[in-house]
Amino acid sequence: MTLPLQIDYALALSEGIGPRAKVGAGHLSEEQPRFLAGLQRVLEKVRSGELGFWSLPQDEPLVDQLEAFRNTLPTEIRDVLVLGIGGSSLGARAVIHALTDPAENERPAENERPAQNGGAQGKALRIHFPDNSDPWLLSALLSELSPSSTVAIAISKSGGTVETAASLLVVRQWLQRELAASASKHLVAITDPERGPLRALANEEGWSSFEVPANVGGRFSVLSAVGLLPAQLAGIDIRALLQGARDMASVCERETLVQNPAGILAALHALHHRADRPIHVLMPYADALRPFAAWYVQLWAESLGKRLNTRGEVVEVGPTPVPAVGATDQHAQGQLFMEGPRDKLITFVSVKHPPRDLAIPESTGDYAYLGGKTLGALLDAERRGTAEALARDGRPSLTVEIDRLDGYNLGALLFVYEAATAIAGELYEVNAFDQPGVEEGKRLASGLMGRPGYEDAAAEITRAEASRPANCRFCG
Amino acid sequence: MTLPLQIDYALALSEGIGPRAKVGAGHLSEEQPRFLAGLQRVLEKVRSGELGFWSLPQDEPLVDQLEAFRNTLPTEIRDVLVLGIGGSSLGARAVIHALTDPAENERPAENERPAQNGGAQGKALRIHFPDNSDPWLLSALLSELSPSSTVAIAISKSGGTVETAASLLVVRQWLQRELAASASKHLVAITDPERGPLRALANEEGWSSFEVPANVGGRFSVLSAVGLLPAQLAGIDIRALLQGARDMASVCERETLVQNPAGILAALHALHHRADRPIHVLMPYADALRPFAAWYVQLWAESLGKRLNTRGEVVEVGPTPVPAVGATDQHAQGQLFMEGPRDKLITFVSVKHPPRDLAIPESTGDYAYLGGKTLGALLDAERRGTAEALARDGRPSLTVEIDRLDGYNLGALLFVYEAATAIAGELYEVNAFDQPGVEEGKRLASGLMGRPGYEDAAAEITRAEASRPANCRFCG
Repeated sequence: MTLPLQIDYALALSEGIGPRAKVGAGHLSEEQPRFLAGLQRVLEKVRSGELGFWSLPQDEPLVDQLEAFRNTLPTEIRDVLVLGIGGSSLGARAVIHALTDPAENERPAENERPAQNGGAQGKALRIHFPDNSDPWLLSALLSELSPSSTVAIAISKSGGTVETAASLLVVRQWLQRELAASASKHLVAITDPERGPLRALANEEGWSSFEVPANVGGRFSVLSAVGLLPAQLAGIDIRALLQGARDMASVCERETLVQNPAGILAALHALHHRADRPIHVLMPYADALRPFAAWYVQLWAESLGKRLNTRGEVVEVGPTPVPAVGATDQHAQGQLFMEGPRDKLITFVSVKHPPRDLAIPESTGDYAYLGGKTLGALLDAERRGTAEALARDGRPSLTVEIDRLDGYNLGALLFVYEAATAIAGELYEVNAFDQPGVEEGKRLASGLMGRPGYEDAAAEITRAEASRPANCRFCG
Repeated sequence: MTLPLQIDYALALSEGIGPRAKVGAGHLSEEQPRFLAGLQRVLEKVRSGELGFWSLPQDEPLVDQLEAFRNTLPTEIRDVLVLGIGGSSLGARAVIHALTDPAENERPAENERPAQNGGAQGKALRIHFPDNSDPWLLSALLSELSPSSTVAIAISKSGGTVETAASLLVVRQWLQRELAASASKHLVAITDPERGPLRALANEEGWSSFEVPANVGGRFSVLSAVGLLPAQLAGIDIRALLQGARDMASVCERETLVQNPAGILAALHALHHRADRPIHVLMPYADALRPFAAWYVQLWAESLGKRLNTRGEVVEVGPTPVPAVGATDQHAQGQLFMEGPRDKLITFVSVKHPPRDLAIPESTGDYAYLGGKTLGALLDAERRGTAEALARDGRPSLTVEIDRLDGYNLGALLFVYEAATAIAGELYEVNAFDQPGVEEGKRLASGLMGRPGYEDAAAEITRAEASRPANCRFCG
């Protein structure tokens, strides 16, 4: 079987680019035992039910539920507001951006397009992501949309995410003012099956709802209802997405490192990190994958950036992921990648067949040589030229290749990166599934917002701010 | 006079957060002589005419020209395609995104909005940035737009940027097919005043054109026609933008480091870099400033990431800029910033008065405490909570504050970052105004595209690719 995803890592090894790579095939071999032990720990957690993301692609009944839900929506619905932040929006955003045309989501509702997934109502909805508590974003959106044709999906695993709660309260009032009691038909919750304030509100008001499984963390939730419901409403074939993920799940269970794509990604990054390359750039040569790079940034940063290792020792480790897109970033970050410190490992993503291609017309003068070639060929030439220029200077890269951008291949790509992150957690010796570091900032902000029980936090931050030296300030 | 921009850097110094900052007020004082020498070198280049960006805000005649041009456009024009990449698009994008409503640019043409700048025709145009040679992006756009209501602006200082040339040839053909000879009224060039293929084409076909001054590099060109023309067409008050920049230009000439905002930014980053913090995060708490962060990434990376220092020694230096946006990235990169390696300096940007605010409605249960507060207050509380949580753990940050997002303040912000970059170049001892590293990749790509004179490059890359070990590849 030809797999939906290939990885070319010759340029990441000394064998391909010489000794300055500082990592060679021998290191990969040496990593095999550590990889295998790590993989086995991950798969043991999968089997015991502690770790849920690995099994999400099997969840066919969920797809049936989501399709059934689609058909219960009021027929006048045209727009979807996804109220979620971080892992509750980045996955759906990556999928929808990659698999729909760039202008489609903004197109006025009159120009309806058919759903790719043959949805019963035969049209795709426009999906909006006001994924910040910035009022600028949400108020502009609400002024464009109409309550009667909008459904809002609130997504928070705990139900306690304050940005999502605040946005939801605003949107709920906006719906209720026009729709009164039937607003509840325009509200959907995706949250814990039993607990939390979002679950309570959904139950009380009779909204439709879906679950974030207890054993699936936000940044690993793209193949649960969190990512699938918005994608399905956007008209995307989510069965193909799951099929791609499912096919890669079995490949990612292989016990030989160099036959396991997630293992290869995890091991190369860990090895290059040990060789003083803590900055991990993801640079798809495809504009459609910009939000995929943003999804990767969260996955990699939040999973691997940790104060403690698994033995409880203070280590303060973690690579810094950097998003880029080719060819655009050749004109922005390329200079730094090529001449700056040798502290980076760059992963290119190549899409062999662009979703649409454009022939470059014949012309005279300096541009004449472009005539008859295509923009897709140019993009590919730029990727190869960039990788080769880095390689000549002993700067490592690898290339993840997919044949085309469709649901099947994207599902494979998403799954491989999730699996790679879980395995990387083992190689970095950290818990890849928690995020304890964000609590303190939340606690202090809760104090400032007057949340009951956080009076101490309010006092602490007010006192701290007042105690700061006043002369460290430029004000004219 | 109250300046449009303030900088609070108490949390970047030991005086504010304790010895783990590793940088204190004393270091800033010690930096004064180096700063002053650097500033003088920069201003000498400004005076001699070698360095142009510092004087751009003075160019009132250009504004008159741009306004006059606006009135010569065919009245049916609704859409503008900006064909540029890197410095030829990031600046305009940052300005337009920051100063128009998020949905405005996508709004169908029927819903016209008045121009803020009181343009003679009283309406703002929609500006599109297909700033990649990815055919997916451009073909989708062309299928949405109509040639008769579209004007394309091709921007390339040298005229030789291959991605821009290729996109331009496609767009020019698309215009000519429908408009025949009058297509030339729908094409505009911004390029070198005399040289290069884009200048030649514009002259030959009689397009309107503007200059990129010879002494202004792409990433410093936002306040030239490169940034101002698209901004003006979007209905933005570009006189206010220039006024803000002009007011800061004089402040950025101050010879005392702690009175010079560009000096403070440059020195704090250089000092923290020397204290092993090579990663420089820019995190505006404002969704409208996301593209501003992307603009900063190019400015900082391409200016400071250099192989050679000014004495010609191989140094391979340069910070890695990382874009983020609050509060969203608290849920993505926050964990890494808080618990990962102590290799980062974070700059928050705070906008005191959000362009629109939204009241959070009253509710019962866990969210009740939010009732009566605003989304803007929540965003601000999150920023303060995050900065304080970092500070408590000895992790440094600084905060750039502006009063509100308008042309005047944004112009100030853009100028201060440009000036800071020029000064940082002096402190890093590199040439901040070249980008020699990107040539090799371009040369190899030109070879692959069959460009005459690049036959050697084609042979080199083909041979190199063929010589790579075949077994460093995962393919199933």
